[in-house]
Amino acid sequence: MALQVEKTTSGREYKVKDMSQADFGRLEIELAEVEMPGLMSCRAEFGPSQPFKGAKITGSLHMTIQTAVLIETLTALGAEVRWCSCNIFSTQDHAAAVIARDSAAVFAWKGETLQEYWWCTERALDWGPGGGPDLIVDDGGDATLLIHEGVKAEEIYEKTGKLPDPASTDNAEFQIVLTIIRDGLKADPKKYHKMQERLVGVSEETTTGVKRLYQMQDNGTLLFPAINVNDSVTKSKFDNLYGCRHSLPDGLMRATDVMIAGKVAVVCGYGDVGKGCAAALKQAGARVIITEIDPICALQALMEGIQVLTLEDVVSVADIFVTTTGNKDIIMVDDMKKMKNNAIVCNIGHFDNEIDMLGLENYPGVKRITIKPQTDRWVFPETNTGIIVLAEGRLMNLGCATGHPSFVMSCSFTNQVIAQLELWKERKSGKYEKKVYVLPKHLDEKVAALHLGKLGAKLTKLSKSQADYISVPVEGPYKPANYRY
Amino acid sequence: MALQVEKTTSGREYKVKDMSQADFGRLEIELAEVEMPGLMSCRAEFGPSQPFKGAKITGSLHMTIQTAVLIETLTALGAEVRWCSCNIFSTQDHAAAVIARDSAAVFAWKGETLQEYWWCTERALDWGPGGGPDLIVDDGGDATLLIHEGVKAEEIYEKTGKLPDPASTDNAEFQIVLTIIRDGLKADPKKYHKMQERLVGVSEETTTGVKRLYQMQDNGTLLFPAINVNDSVTKSKFDNLYGCRHSLPDGLMRATDVMIAGKVAVVCGYGDVGKGCAAALKQAGARVIITEIDPICALQALMEGIQVLTLEDVVSVADIFVTTTGNKDIIMVDDMKKMKNNAIVCNIGHFDNEIDMLGLENYPGVKRITIKPQTDRWVFPETNTGIIVLAEGRLMNLGCATGHPSFVMSCSFTNQVIAQLELWKERKSGKYEKKVYVLPKHLDEKVAALHLGKLGAKLTKLSKSQADYISVPVEGPYKPANYRY
Amino acid sequence: MALQVEKTTSGREYKVKDMSQADFGRLEIELAEVEMPGLMSCRAEFGPSQPFKGAKITGSLHMTIQTAVLIETLTALGAEVRWCSCNIFSTQDHAAAVIARDSAAVFAWKGETLQEYWWCTERALDWGPGGGPDLIVDDGGDATLLIHEGVKAEEIYEKTGKLPDPASTDNAEFQIVLTIIRDGLKADPKKYHKMQERLVGVSEETTTGVKRLYQMQDNGTLLFPAINVNDSVTKSKFDNLYGCRHSLPDGLMRATDVMIAGKVAVVCGYGDVGKGCAAALKQAGARVIITEIDPICALQALMEGIQVLTLEDVVSVADIFVTTTGNKDIIMVDDMKKMKNNAIVCNIGHFDNEIDMLGLENYPGVKRITIKPQTDRWVFPETNTGIIVLAEGRLMNLGCATGHPSFVMSCSFTNQVIAQLELWKERKSGKYEKKVYVLPKHLDEKVAALHLGKLGAKLTKLSKSQADYISVPVEGPYKPANYRY
Amino acid sequence: MALQVEKTTSGREYKVKDMSQADFGRLEIELAEVEMPGLMSCRAEFGPSQPFKGAKITGSLHMTIQTAVLIETLTALGAEVRWCSCNIFSTQDHAAAVIARDSAAVFAWKGETLQEYWWCTERALDWGPGGGPDLIVDDGGDATLLIHEGVKAEEIYEKTGKLPDPASTDNAEFQIVLTIIRDGLKADPKKYHKMQERLVGVSEETTTGVKRLYQMQDNGTLLFPAINVNDSVTKSKFDNLYGCRHSLPDGLMRATDVMIAGKVAVVCGYGDVGKGCAAALKQAGARVIITEIDPICALQALMEGIQVLTLEDVVSVADIFVTTTGNKDIIMVDDMKKMKNNAIVCNIGHFDNEIDMLGLENYPGVKRITIKPQTDRWVFPETNTGIIVLAEGRLMNLGCATGHPSFVMSCSFTNQVIAQLELWKERKSGKYEKKVYVLPKHLDEKVAALHLGKLGAKLTKLSKSQADYISVPVEGPYKPANYRY
Repeated sequence: MALQVEKTTSGREYKVKDMSQADFGRLEIELAEVEMPGLMSCRAEFGPSQPFKGAKITGSLHMTIQTAVLIETLTALGAEVRWCSCNIFSTQDHAAAVIARDSAAVFAWKGETLQEYWWCTERALDWGPGGGPDLIVDDGGDATLLIHEGVKAEEIYEKTGKLPDPASTDNAEFQIVLTIIRDGLKADPKKYHKMQERLVGVSEETTTGVKRLYQMQDNGTLLFPAINVNDSVTKSKFDNLYGCRHSLPDGLMRATDVMIAGKVAVVCGYGDVGKGCAAALKQAGARVIITEIDPICALQALMEGIQVLTLEDVVSVADIFVTTTGNKDIIMVDDMKKMKNNAIVCNIGHFDNEIDMLGLENYPGVKRITIKPQTDRWVFPETNTGIIVLAEGRLMNLGCATGHPSFVMSCSFTNQVIAQLELWKERKSGKYEKKVYVLPKHLDEKVAALHLGKLGAKLTKLSKSQADYISVPVEGPYKPANYRY
Repeated sequence: MALQVEKTTSGREYKVKDMSQADFGRLEIELAEVEMPGLMSCRAEFGPSQPFKGAKITGSLHMTIQTAVLIETLTALGAEVRWCSCNIFSTQDHAAAVIARDSAAVFAWKGETLQEYWWCTERALDWGPGGGPDLIVDDGGDATLLIHEGVKAEEIYEKTGKLPDPASTDNAEFQIVLTIIRDGLKADPKKYHKMQERLVGVSEETTTGVKRLYQMQDNGTLLFPAINVNDSVTKSKFDNLYGCRHSLPDGLMRATDVMIAGKVAVVCGYGDVGKGCAAALKQAGARVIITEIDPICALQALMEGIQVLTLEDVVSVADIFVTTTGNKDIIMVDDMKKMKNNAIVCNIGHFDNEIDMLGLENYPGVKRITIKPQTDRWVFPETNTGIIVLAEGRLMNLGCATGHPSFVMSCSFTNQVIAQLELWKERKSGKYEKKVYVLPKHLDEKVAALHLGKLGAKLTKLSKSQADYISVPVEGPYKPANYRY
Repeated sequence: MALQVEKTTSGREYKVKDMSQADFGRLEIELAEVEMPGLMSCRAEFGPSQPFKGAKITGSLHMTIQTAVLIETLTALGAEVRWCSCNIFSTQDHAAAVIARDSAAVFAWKGETLQEYWWCTERALDWGPGGGPDLIVDDGGDATLLIHEGVKAEEIYEKTGKLPDPASTDNAEFQIVLTIIRDGLKADPKKYHKMQERLVGVSEETTTGVKRLYQMQDNGTLLFPAINVNDSVTKSKFDNLYGCRHSLPDGLMRATDVMIAGKVAVVCGYGDVGKGCAAALKQAGARVIITEIDPICALQALMEGIQVLTLEDVVSVADIFVTTTGNKDIIMVDDMKKMKNNAIVCNIGHFDNEIDMLGLENYPGVKRITIKPQTDRWVFPETNTGIIVLAEGRLMNLGCATGHPSFVMSCSFTNQVIAQLELWKERKSGKYEKKVYVLPKHLDEKVAALHLGKLGAKLTKLSKSQADYISVPVEGPYKPANYRY
Repeated sequence: MALQVEKTTSGREYKVKDMSQADFGRLEIELAEVEMPGLMSCRAEFGPSQPFKGAKITGSLHMTIQTAVLIETLTALGAEVRWCSCNIFSTQDHAAAVIARDSAAVFAWKGETLQEYWWCTERALDWGPGGGPDLIVDDGGDATLLIHEGVKAEEIYEKTGKLPDPASTDNAEFQIVLTIIRDGLKADPKKYHKMQERLVGVSEETTTGVKRLYQMQDNGTLLFPAINVNDSVTKSKFDNLYGCRHSLPDGLMRATDVMIAGKVAVVCGYGDVGKGCAAALKQAGARVIITEIDPICALQALMEGIQVLTLEDVVSVADIFVTTTGNKDIIMVDDMKKMKNNAIVCNIGHFDNEIDMLGLENYPGVKRITIKPQTDRWVFPETNTGIIVLAEGRLMNLGCATGHPSFVMSCSFTNQVIAQLELWKERKSGKYEKKVYVLPKHLDEKVAALHLGKLGAKLTKLSKSQADYISVPVEGPYKPANYRY
């Protein structure tokens, strides 16, 4: 690995695939801006006062066109930004190019190796001698993880002189993380401590990242305040649900051109992501079957006419398999062997270990035929039949299509901007401890409100007497905290 | 009012419409039992140990066939029960008859006057000299209200000697409540205090009742512990949503036989009830428009392709209007005047004041033509055109049809049984203070699980390593408390 | 059988259940008129010229509120009318009463015996000494059948002196037909010949009736011209499809209150009726499985995500069974024995022999428990479990609910009016031979056009150059005859 | 234009974009074969007997992967094949490459100019001195048109010596056609006559092409027999409906990544294509409005809850516009000027003149910004806002995505193979005159049956007595010719 940081004429660092795609990226950003009213409203409302003046923000979040609009919203509000992707396949190279050229330091390209991925993450976190970041925008928690692991290693090193040992773990990816930390330690044994000290907080995008944060909070190991953006209603009930409803069929079509109508599709998990996937597949004419561990979600599926079975029941008759669980070991290589010829297997949950890619790769005699990037046919030697795996088991909507569309990402990212503003505004007030917070409901409602006009909606206004009757303020918030929507 | 309590041969009190319908009621109960696996499982699990032995339970909840199965579950577990309906139109007379004959003291019939309604409520609360009730099953909170108002009046009376004055309020219904309390006070100035002292707690069924309870909790006026059954996921996300999706079209069809396809239908409110109604109307081929005050719910509607406008925008073009808000003054008589001839106006929210029935009744020159019970055409003198109001503005699914179907009520009522069991079991432990509680998630999940087998579903089981990976117990609960489903 | 014709004060004959329901019938007719713009347009357009002046029309078609509006449209255009129902359960008694009182001779009530049914049919055809009818409105072809069988029997009698022998057939219903003809023959051996000679033609409503007509046309035995109203697009693609989509769940709910969501529903046949039923069940949250003989219809179901299996595959797991085939022997008693306890079995196709009612009734030891009229639980002795059969195997939407809603029947019945007008106008022109005709497409389009305004639709108009480009007249018809819609 | 035919090592002619994509094409063909059971069954059933031995087939039909499987089915049955695309954007270059390399003479690439397009068409028709083609597979009728125009010109030339004059028409494309014919005439004044004499017949794929054929039949100018494949149920009710339901959102997503949920989408035309498009958009969460000229189709839309308005009513509020009419002048430049910024305008009907591309291109001061190939933003000078036009107004599903998926094309193309077999088998029998024919229903049903197994469906078999009861053969066909499905 001899990755070289490059610099723009203005001296800003970057590492992207192809700078010549920047103009194309700009055109697509301009389209996206029209579809992202929440972010554009933030620019209009907060831009003039430059609230992020002086703030250095690192982002680890899919470097797509939508993220580009987020980044340029942060910079429009005064921030300085460094960015990497949180998934090796999710970068859109034209988006990376235009942001690198025009707006922020970007380290991201589609098809990174795992080593390259973590190199990019480290670059995004490294603000040089001036120090930084002040704030982190995280998706899945890898930036947060690196800092926490770094601090931990530095503490051990300080106490014992022991460097982290990559050989101490079987997990190939974690070996890379340890290597990076080890190499960093040699250069500066307080690198991550300095980072931690300066850090005002992180806002986290996903279910999986949030889960990690709550675990650290519960263990007392969380090093800085965190805002759980995922659990804003305008995030998890929109991005996860409607975003996946859009991008799952998009990914399937771009990767395989398969007719969804008439097929039997198995969706593993019926949370928000699973609900969106099941809805999309059903509406496209598939017969959908879900697998679930949670009886409540299972009963919801049944109420929609969706059959609930175990993977074992359907593994040999289904045509399409989608994992949405955020868990691991959902579809194992032994399952894949039993599938029909050309069954499609893909993941839209979180990590690639939802599908047993390791087991597949190591299966004796298995043959991998790459139809096109992110679309591989794996042929088993016993049967000479194959299955089609998308995006190497990673997020197929980002690997095979372009992720979630701008409008729904505008909801999610407006939450991010608001969370970042809140952390930054309160950086000295002590309002936020080393805990995980959700945004207050009135901000959640505000995010929604910013997206209604674009769709031509008109809200009804409560009269004072109606508001009193149901005991809410006229201007909201309208629901109790635990309301489920 | 000269209502007379009657007695069965065994001496149990009742007041119902027609005892000869009891056999028909029994046949329908037998059908319903097959559809209510949660309640039947409770009988199988808890029946042998008779946990309610000695408990006197008063219920104020629509006296339908489904409620009959609930009542007989309570009695099968050892309870003694008295019951009234919580809505003047919601009683199914054959259900009331069979329960009165076979299982519990019932005071309920379809088409009560408001005076009769409160007489029934008082009868259901009056356990005679032995005292009682120990527990209340409430729906909308009228039984709870009567006790709270009674206690309040008794305190004033004790301090000041003043009796409640029905003339002190404009609200016709509250005048009746005050009259009942006043008359009771004369007979026994400690009646409601004695009730309160004995009362172990209440479990409340609805959004509206729950709201009242939280207000009392916040004001410090709640007199006994309460379990909020409404906010069990297996209640509010099932009964409210899927129940209304079933019973709204059922009510429309039985009342008017109108073709829903092709019509423009306005649903006021897009909470769980509104979501169910909108789904039903859309699927039946209507073009649905919703009105909302909450931007988040509005954005959800838009994501489903449903237009969001104000009532004013559509009042003169729509064919069907449904209120689902739990608020008041949603459709006023001035709105109704602007509607198309034979526009249908109905309420499936909570109280009849969602529709301005008072304004309609008092409109000068308005003519009411009763097509059949619960289906009235109101003709305005200016235009000689009319609108069709269902169930006099009260819950149309109960007034014009038979309410929610057994299966979904089994979910709700299994929560009730579990809540009652919990209150009773902990009656001396001090576990429950004078506050409002929700059931723990593992019980919520249990309720769902009890309903899967009937629908042929098979759950997937977590492995230990998967459970650890997502940090949940293998046997659940699987979701954080704030999970929205 | 000692059925007595009654007479109104004006001397018109009738036989209905309860004349006191006439006012209620009038109120419902007034509601229906608002929903039947096609029929009301016919009254406005043709009423003044009284085109049916002198025409005597006999109808054999479900005596519902919608049919009442049809009848009063015929009389508004100048016709004299006699009517019977075409199904023993389909009469709405208030509709029959009001028509009998105000508009036409009616012989119909809900719950006729088969003998009563044919007595009514004969009464409707018997115009007394003045002769008649001139025209027949038929549904299923029973009026047409009686005349054809009568003529056949008269010919045999004339040639051979032999009277029809009811004992010559096993078919219980046909025995009754033969008895009626036999008795008629004795009174007037030329009765049906006279009828035939006068008859201008018949317009037939249903798939089943139309099939009979084409068979007679092919055999050369059709005795008068027939217009196939069923195959107007605005009939079969609306009434059959959207009508059943409305009335199937309506019937299920009124008869059983069963929750459709979550259930497994089998729809036998995926023609227009089956498509409507499957759509309704799916949208209500059932998991639908269809059975089909026709590979094209089967493939259509698959494209909608509906599984296609044989009855045998699913008989023991499904909850609801609906026959829609127009064929016989679809669900046999041996199938019913294998069903789950309280499985619902019903027919919305045509005759009650889609379900093996005879086999069920004659099953040794079977027990019939009538829950309520048209809802029977049949318990098998071996298992002591039962199934629920609706409307005794006859059309459940008419037997258990109120049939199709007014709006869609307005489409069907406007076709009937137009067909009757056409037959009557051309009665002397020789335009129509003893064959089966469909209405020309421009009339079909006209029927549709008459129903758009009520639903707020606006049509686009072709420019002349556009019309030329696609080679159609500017004013239509717009599609070739074989277009499938 | 100096287009050069190239030759494979085996000497077969071709002209494609990039021969190096052939391997990729082969991989995708192998995937497609699994999805095209109808074509693969034809290979299994007919391959051994080589029925096309000696037949030279020219195809003018989108040169996609699916078409590649069709071509290799024709060659597997013994035919020799030459092929061109019927749309300048619809070729998939890897499909063209692999077929050119392995199976047939191909002249097609994505992004032809109109001149190149007609050069390709002529090449595909030119079988050299040996003569040919014997059969034509046509889509839209361009190959058929060229022959008919050629023959007409040759006749005029023979009689008058006059050559066709390209300047005689305003239509830019027809100028090219006339030029080609003129140049051909000089070389061989009997070229098209010879072609016509040899030609056994054509099978035509589309509504538009079929309309041309019927016009020629009616005018008596049709030069050879034609089989109308479009009106096979398994074509028009599958490919047009379910194909577009799949490929419309696919094209929208690939071209614009726009979120469909929440948008207002206008579908012009509600025929089979429009029905598929409206269904797809509705299911994706758009609010759909249709425009229609035909009252019957309009009423169908209304029954599905879809609003029917004129373009004028909605032009300034909608977000997405789709033309599906097969007519011209549906969306004019004056309409486009009134649209919202970044409104999307696209065509999935037939020719690009559904959208007024000419008017748009010639609009004074309009600016065209190509976001990416087939996705152009056109900015009007007055407002500086723009609209997004897909595929230059041509078929967006082929231009922006990959057309219809394999499975549904297998239905269409199996009809093509059967039609070609039928024409070839009867080439000397005189069975087919110079008329337009549809395939008999039993073959239509056979096509469907060949596609059921792949989807796991099981058909029910009629008993003999059931078949007799409904008067059809046990083995089908099951429906009358005019049945609408």
